[in-house]
Amino acid sequence: MEEKVISKAVISRLPRYYRYLEELKAEGVERISSKELSERMQVTASQIRQDLNNFGGFGQQGYGYNVAYLHETIGKLLCLDKDHPIVIVGIGNIGRAMAEYLKNREAVFYPIGLFDKDPERKGQVVADLPIRGMDELKGFLSENPVDIGIIAVPKENAQEVAEELVNGGIKAIWNFALIDLNLNLPDDVVVENVHLLESLMRLSYNLDMKEKK
Amino acid sequence: MEEKVISKAVISRLPRYYRYLEELKAEGVERISSKELSERMQVTASQIRQDLNNFGGFGQQGYGYNVAYLHETIGKLLCLDKDHPIVIVGIGNIGRAMAEYLKNREAVFYPIGLFDKDPERKGQVVADLPIRGMDELKGFLSENPVDIGIIAVPKENAQEVAEELVNGGIKAIWNFALIDLNLNLPDDVVVENVHLLESLMRLSYNLDMKEKK
Repeated sequence: MEEKVISKAVISRLPRYYRYLEELKAEGVERISSKELSERMQVTASQIRQDLNNFGGFGQQGYGYNVAYLHETIGKLLCLDKDHPIVIVGIGNIGRAMAEYLKNREAVFYPIGLFDKDPERKGQVVADLPIRGMDELKGFLSENPVDIGIIAVPKENAQEVAEELVNGGIKAIWNFALIDLNLNLPDDVVVENVHLLESLMRLSYNLDMKEKK
Repeated sequence: MEEKVISKAVISRLPRYYRYLEELKAEGVERISSKELSERMQVTASQIRQDLNNFGGFGQQGYGYNVAYLHETIGKLLCLDKDHPIVIVGIGNIGRAMAEYLKNREAVFYPIGLFDKDPERKGQVVADLPIRGMDELKGFLSENPVDIGIIAVPKENAQEVAEELVNGGIKAIWNFALIDLNLNLPDDVVVENVHLLESLMRLSYNLDMKEKK
């Protein structure tokens, strides 16, 4: 695979391409033109061609894209051909939901350790895993291969938890706390902030604008 | 409030401004310059000035922004001065977590009705609300003021549920199903798709890229 710098905007669109290709594959579609894909995804055919050109020429003029090949290639780019064991810290509503959600998908992202500082939660079983105390986190990370840490604690505790994860060797954090964790962690740590409340606020703004029209 | 067209990019940044202003207010900060705010938020001061200029001159040269005023004004823009009663359809892991999460915040977004097609879930109580059957949705929407519908059903059922909500008068949908609901609904319905798995895939991609460096 050619190693060129791909823009953040393109990367952010890759999972969506992957999803549409998965659907096409499930429908038995073998080839698709940028025009047909553009109608389905409601983006311009030219954007599709530009985006997919980043990964070398999947498309053949007049023949369209090979669905299975493109699906597999984007899957590999997204690292979906590798296992991603996960620890979740904070087993409240969101942490619990993520544990069950990921377990039920039986996919490459799966929780192997759950941690919470609340002694009353310790020992409870969620998604077939026992909830462990925070004092066990360091040892667990040193003994198990963990790729991703999910943070689902209140924002006041999120930075501290992030640092514990990073000290334990974690390089990727999926953060649900309403704080921008990317701002105060080492540069080699990647963070995706999922700020649910901010998404809800955008919805509320857009609703209000429509109503004013 | 001046009614001008504000770009999607600016709108998508508003909740983040709101969050930082809320923190500043809690810290007792009364005024802040675009430079100080830019250091805190790690965006350029010029972007901050451009963004905030969209809403009329909050900032006075040399005096900085009035934190309380800016916080209140952005809050109103985001419609946080109004109540937003919500129904949630699909009370699995995600729907349940959202019901509890929103209830616990005691804020302007709060669930008033929960619906699920599974007869075994009917009557269970989540976030102090009984889970109702799907046959009750239409009547509920006609009798209660509902602003926002949350969809947390499998993607196979999401379009159908969205149409039921829209037929019941809902104009805003917060969608957790892995499908782009905005593509096949009337134009006056606003949708925020929260595709959690795609966020996780971006994290996995970025982790892989860092490791290759």
